[in-house]
Amino acid sequence: MPLQVSDAASYPRLDRRLRLGFVGGGRGGLVGDWHATGARLSDCWEIVAGALSSNPENAVQSGRDWRLAEERIFTDYREMAEKEAARGDGIDAVAICTPNHTHYDIACAFMDAGIDIICDKPITLTSEEALDLATRQRASGLVFGVTHPYVYHPMVRQARAMVRRGDLGPVRQVQVEYAQDWRTGPPDPAFKGAVWRSDPKKVGRASTAGDIGTHAYHLLHFVTGLPVTELRADFHVCGAPKDMEDTAFINLKFENGAPGAMWLTQAAPGNYCGLRLRIYGEKAGLEWEQETAEILRFNPLDQPQQIIVRGHGSGVEPEAERMLRQPRGHGEALSDAWANLYRELAIAIAARRDGLALPDDLLAIPDAMDGARGVKFIEAAADSHEAGGVWTKCWLDG
Amino acid sequence: MPLQVSDAASYPRLDRRLRLGFVGGGRGGLVGDWHATGARLSDCWEIVAGALSSNPENAVQSGRDWRLAEERIFTDYREMAEKEAARGDGIDAVAICTPNHTHYDIACAFMDAGIDIICDKPITLTSEEALDLATRQRASGLVFGVTHPYVYHPMVRQARAMVRRGDLGPVRQVQVEYAQDWRTGPPDPAFKGAVWRSDPKKVGRASTAGDIGTHAYHLLHFVTGLPVTELRADFHVCGAPKDMEDTAFINLKFENGAPGAMWLTQAAPGNYCGLRLRIYGEKAGLEWEQETAEILRFNPLDQPQQIIVRGHGSGVEPEAERMLRQPRGHGEALSDAWANLYRELAIAIAARRDGLALPDDLLAIPDAMDGARGVKFIEAAADSHEAGGVWTKCWLDG
Amino acid sequence: MPLQVSDAASYPRLDRRLRLGFVGGGRGGLVGDWHATGARLSDCWEIVAGALSSNPENAVQSGRDWRLAEERIFTDYREMAEKEAARGDGIDAVAICTPNHTHYDIACAFMDAGIDIICDKPITLTSEEALDLATRQRASGLVFGVTHPYVYHPMVRQARAMVRRGDLGPVRQVQVEYAQDWRTGPPDPAFKGAVWRSDPKKVGRASTAGDIGTHAYHLLHFVTGLPVTELRADFHVCGAPKDMEDTAFINLKFENGAPGAMWLTQAAPGNYCGLRLRIYGEKAGLEWEQETAEILRFNPLDQPQQIIVRGHGSGVEPEAERMLRQPRGHGEALSDAWANLYRELAIAIAARRDGLALPDDLLAIPDAMDGARGVKFIEAAADSHEAGGVWTKCWLDG
Amino acid sequence: MPLQVSDAASYPRLDRRLRLGFVGGGRGGLVGDWHATGARLSDCWEIVAGALSSNPENAVQSGRDWRLAEERIFTDYREMAEKEAARGDGIDAVAICTPNHTHYDIACAFMDAGIDIICDKPITLTSEEALDLATRQRASGLVFGVTHPYVYHPMVRQARAMVRRGDLGPVRQVQVEYAQDWRTGPPDPAFKGAVWRSDPKKVGRASTAGDIGTHAYHLLHFVTGLPVTELRADFHVCGAPKDMEDTAFINLKFENGAPGAMWLTQAAPGNYCGLRLRIYGEKAGLEWEQETAEILRFNPLDQPQQIIVRGHGSGVEPEAERMLRQPRGHGEALSDAWANLYRELAIAIAARRDGLALPDDLLAIPDAMDGARGVKFIEAAADSHEAGGVWTKCWLDG
Repeated sequence: MPLQVSDAASYPRLDRRLRLGFVGGGRGGLVGDWHATGARLSDCWEIVAGALSSNPENAVQSGRDWRLAEERIFTDYREMAEKEAARGDGIDAVAICTPNHTHYDIACAFMDAGIDIICDKPITLTSEEALDLATRQRASGLVFGVTHPYVYHPMVRQARAMVRRGDLGPVRQVQVEYAQDWRTGPPDPAFKGAVWRSDPKKVGRASTAGDIGTHAYHLLHFVTGLPVTELRADFHVCGAPKDMEDTAFINLKFENGAPGAMWLTQAAPGNYCGLRLRIYGEKAGLEWEQETAEILRFNPLDQPQQIIVRGHGSGVEPEAERMLRQPRGHGEALSDAWANLYRELAIAIAARRDGLALPDDLLAIPDAMDGARGVKFIEAAADSHEAGGVWTKCWLDG
Repeated sequence: MPLQVSDAASYPRLDRRLRLGFVGGGRGGLVGDWHATGARLSDCWEIVAGALSSNPENAVQSGRDWRLAEERIFTDYREMAEKEAARGDGIDAVAICTPNHTHYDIACAFMDAGIDIICDKPITLTSEEALDLATRQRASGLVFGVTHPYVYHPMVRQARAMVRRGDLGPVRQVQVEYAQDWRTGPPDPAFKGAVWRSDPKKVGRASTAGDIGTHAYHLLHFVTGLPVTELRADFHVCGAPKDMEDTAFINLKFENGAPGAMWLTQAAPGNYCGLRLRIYGEKAGLEWEQETAEILRFNPLDQPQQIIVRGHGSGVEPEAERMLRQPRGHGEALSDAWANLYRELAIAIAARRDGLALPDDLLAIPDAMDGARGVKFIEAAADSHEAGGVWTKCWLDG
Repeated sequence: MPLQVSDAASYPRLDRRLRLGFVGGGRGGLVGDWHATGARLSDCWEIVAGALSSNPENAVQSGRDWRLAEERIFTDYREMAEKEAARGDGIDAVAICTPNHTHYDIACAFMDAGIDIICDKPITLTSEEALDLATRQRASGLVFGVTHPYVYHPMVRQARAMVRRGDLGPVRQVQVEYAQDWRTGPPDPAFKGAVWRSDPKKVGRASTAGDIGTHAYHLLHFVTGLPVTELRADFHVCGAPKDMEDTAFINLKFENGAPGAMWLTQAAPGNYCGLRLRIYGEKAGLEWEQETAEILRFNPLDQPQQIIVRGHGSGVEPEAERMLRQPRGHGEALSDAWANLYRELAIAIAARRDGLALPDDLLAIPDAMDGARGVKFIEAAADSHEAGGVWTKCWLDG
Repeated sequence: MPLQVSDAASYPRLDRRLRLGFVGGGRGGLVGDWHATGARLSDCWEIVAGALSSNPENAVQSGRDWRLAEERIFTDYREMAEKEAARGDGIDAVAICTPNHTHYDIACAFMDAGIDIICDKPITLTSEEALDLATRQRASGLVFGVTHPYVYHPMVRQARAMVRRGDLGPVRQVQVEYAQDWRTGPPDPAFKGAVWRSDPKKVGRASTAGDIGTHAYHLLHFVTGLPVTELRADFHVCGAPKDMEDTAFINLKFENGAPGAMWLTQAAPGNYCGLRLRIYGEKAGLEWEQETAEILRFNPLDQPQQIIVRGHGSGVEPEAERMLRQPRGHGEALSDAWANLYRELAIAIAARRDGLALPDDLLAIPDAMDGARGVKFIEAAADSHEAGGVWTKCWLDG
């Protein structure tokens, strides 16, 4: 039995590295590097196969860059799914790192082949497709992990634990923002990611709201546990002219009646990767920012602010400790979050393969249903914007 | 001639301290202390008369606390206006520090007596009253200063200068927020300011949106120079139950088409006096926060952030230098801003008394028309909220 | 009886403003402005007399700038001492804001006239003179306040209270530094303060170590309560060439055996007024910096850092609350510290005049003996440096 | 030819992953995890062999944990050196992660077998041994990399480039500190690293000064390029009683006459991994801190502070760009620094194996001579302390 769940250890050990294939991720891309970073640093995976580009030449070159065996370098993901499924040492999972419009077909092909899925966000162009993937996930029992790396930072887990144990009291309002500046000026034609992100056929009904908005939306739900039932969105182009929005101002209504605001932009000079979450309850507030991911600011009403850092003996919850990779003060950052993501997925996938039930609450991996909620968020925002900024239902139960 | 305008000096000198009277500001209040602080630290004023409370006993006690001459301690502001106007050494100006609903009558009484006005914000309960004060100001030629102290910080002046000289390029979006936490829990009945701020008869159609919202609104206009033409507001109670809002989420449309968001709350634990302005143009962004008022963050696109601090030789504009009270590194804070406010008003009032025209652009004192715009902002926000969050005209020309 | 000590109030009230005279502080100076700022903002003083410069013309001009009555503008401080002592409404205290070498004679003249002293630091050129002033203070019963404004910040008081109540456990090591950069480049001949600070006849045996070193030294003693028994100093010129040191590296031994380091420089580009104190005990550490004076960082071992801010209900000690001038979040800075300094001195001086014993521990005003310790520190540092950096006794008991 | 040096690419590509063996690094250790992290994340190495502990059982268990082939799990490093050297697919390099006293013998064994060395610091117990390793390195032509990971942060490279191109002018003074708190309380007997670090037979003549002091010492030399010619050290126990120092206060003299101070402690509560370097020149200052490794503060005299962040178009030098692993805003931290370290070593080792001369200045890898300087620093500090804190020669030419 490859997976051993130990009471003593903070997480189960695998008896071998799992085998990972990639669709997308070849030369010129960025997202594939993150996935590969996570896989390597986790030490739970070896990358053995790939259809790394829709461009055959790039696919082959990139496969050689990655030192894949020649027979496992593919130019067609369907062939890859088929052949890998047929091997005794075929891939345990596929990482899908392609532009948005291709996710659905690729995911279907690998799920049909019985291969677990690790998929970038947004997982599809439409919520119908996304819900279909969720249905397929349930029916098949496969793992379908959506890659929201930010929730694999220890302090995000700590924030979630603190909200759940009531340190804030009932949540009464939320501010979330994700601000960047790389689309302020005219696009660099050499950066493919900038091109397809402005093409509605490839990116879907929203650009910035889909690209970084789904992260912000998932983060706030992950931490607060509160569904956003309605939203109101206005899309804008605040940077150089482009076909789709680079900025969105969104108002939120949570299930418990609390209001919130979300600001998404890629055209605010001086913001690099400014994902920031502020949650206010009756008893306390919490603040977390991606660029200083190791710090969680806890503000109990009328008491000194506490700077919570991973590794403290007091107050850091097991679900945060579980994500630690370094002693405190020795910095962790995005690579470490991706490594945690790939480690947790390895545990989940090994457990599925072994028919092993994991302890309740061991893992908190965003799945296809979470991915579908992200797509629904994009649709609701686009609907609201197109209707002139009216309140629009947003949530998917299930 | 009491006022001497020197080319060499950064500002004119007065040949005597001006005489200041107070309406409101007695024991138990907070706002009066700020006014008195500014007057004292500016060294341009002596406080000589007052109707310091509507409660006669408090008025007398407070007058003695302040060491006023007995005959200049009043229990009725109308009597004060009349008697002071009749004295040869009567007050040069009156500071109005009372609850909102009384401002209009008090201002009228002193303007009728030919006395210059220094009035807290919002200046009236309705925009009709406010516009009437603006009309009276113009007709009388009197000075009517509205006390927005934040724009007397050197780095706010620097921000304004940088926007005006085009360092940001055209402004494309704005985020402004003013977050506090003192109304999160149940109110302290001993704090009178909390009581009247929840009473629409005294505070007007908005509570938090009026109290701190007018500051945020004025600040963003002062710095950007851009009128807000429309807004959309939702009011909420996020703290302990109360009769009026303690939180508002507001969307803004600027005259040039740029969008903005404003967040106002007094129920977000861990925020003390969190007034924060972020402006983004085509070429750069600017950030300023009241709690670190000495720092202006300037983010030219794709270049290192600059931490602009008062007193640097390069890049700090004369209108910021003009507000300096200490060498750099020797901290300035709210008292210094109030001192600048009272110094600038002293110059304006002395100049008016002397019939002296000041150099163009020497002063940038919020006046009755600015005050009226603040009241219009409150009304637009209340109208929008009551209509369910619809876009509502906001701006007053003039 | 002018002074009323109330149980209810946090500090006694004066029934009149005290009368203050200045020696030094005229045009071109900086230190006098701080004293005047503190006196004005405290609202406990009126400035009525002055020998504001050793240059007669400047003395007269400056006196008129300050709106002193002509007969109370002096060109000779001895005449001022004599005449003010003879008036019924003579000054209650004199503020001495002149270069160091003149302090002793001026202080003697006013003490001989029975006038309380408020003296800048270092109080004399030699410890013999300083101890003589301390002896005279004791013999006369006069108040002799030395102006170390930093210890009038609420968070410095809070730090002191926390050390005293044992929050840190025994202090085991200390780091203190005061770094500026204004002497990095060649001196501006127009800045008189730069000139006399490089002249050993006027500044004493150390320049930087005297000017800012005495502040750092006093601060660490004020907060820790620990005498420095020995020190080892090396003086350097790290900025433009000059006759005296602009930088000192000093090692410290405390009475309890704990080591410490002190770094003093006025030639470290990017440091404006970087006074920073870090104290480490067995149980916790504390950090305070002048440029962010409102924040005290408390680090209990293995627990989250606490950001202690004035005005919190929990944990802020009465001796810190006593220094508050603004609600929390409404910034306080150097002007406020000087105002606290002048208020505390007013209370002490009024009490002395009335023969009133103040409650134990009400005031913690640096006095002539503290001033003498500062001079001894300078001498020990200069002795150590001149001897090649040997351990040198430093402390003055008494 | 395995290594291809491309003009276009920022660094050469390897045509295969190099093979890495470990001595030390087994269960219970910390340092081995960092080395393995760097090797994995760099994607330039595969870990194939190890003598992971001096305890045979731990060695075997750890080897299995790491999924080494059984025949490449060793309990004796000499056997490992011999057998790996004999294999066609033997290790390309060995990572030495054992306690200090074993480094010399292990390094000699692998150098004798013709295997390149990656060695933790301090590299030996004595400078004689260290110089012998440096001599052997030169004689053999082998690569001998010492693992100072901090200099692989992009902003440390940027700092070095800025000093070298004269942005600061001549360096006039330096402050460096490395402060931790994990030895404040009594040691945890389960933490082996705490035990041997207090045993002079294993750790050498200094504990804290060796453990973290060598990092601080190397960092300041790497960035400034200035040899420390003399130092003066005092060792202290500021935390719980222990046999060796947990704190050192050190004064420095640089070759150009500039003074500096170094503070090293593992007993200052609230400091986790507080390595901080401040360099001051005639024209500007620079500040870098390990816990916020992505930010470099540049303070040109009398101009605004610049926050330099990796990835900016302007001002970031190629030698910093070369270390980038993520787009700006997407955090990098210690794992990324270790990955850069292992990538640079892979390039150097592949080049040596291929007889390839790399472009001048391509690599800046701390080598055995740098390691020897670190040991000499330890000895000088210990000598100085034992002699009562006298100035002691420190530098090793060569």
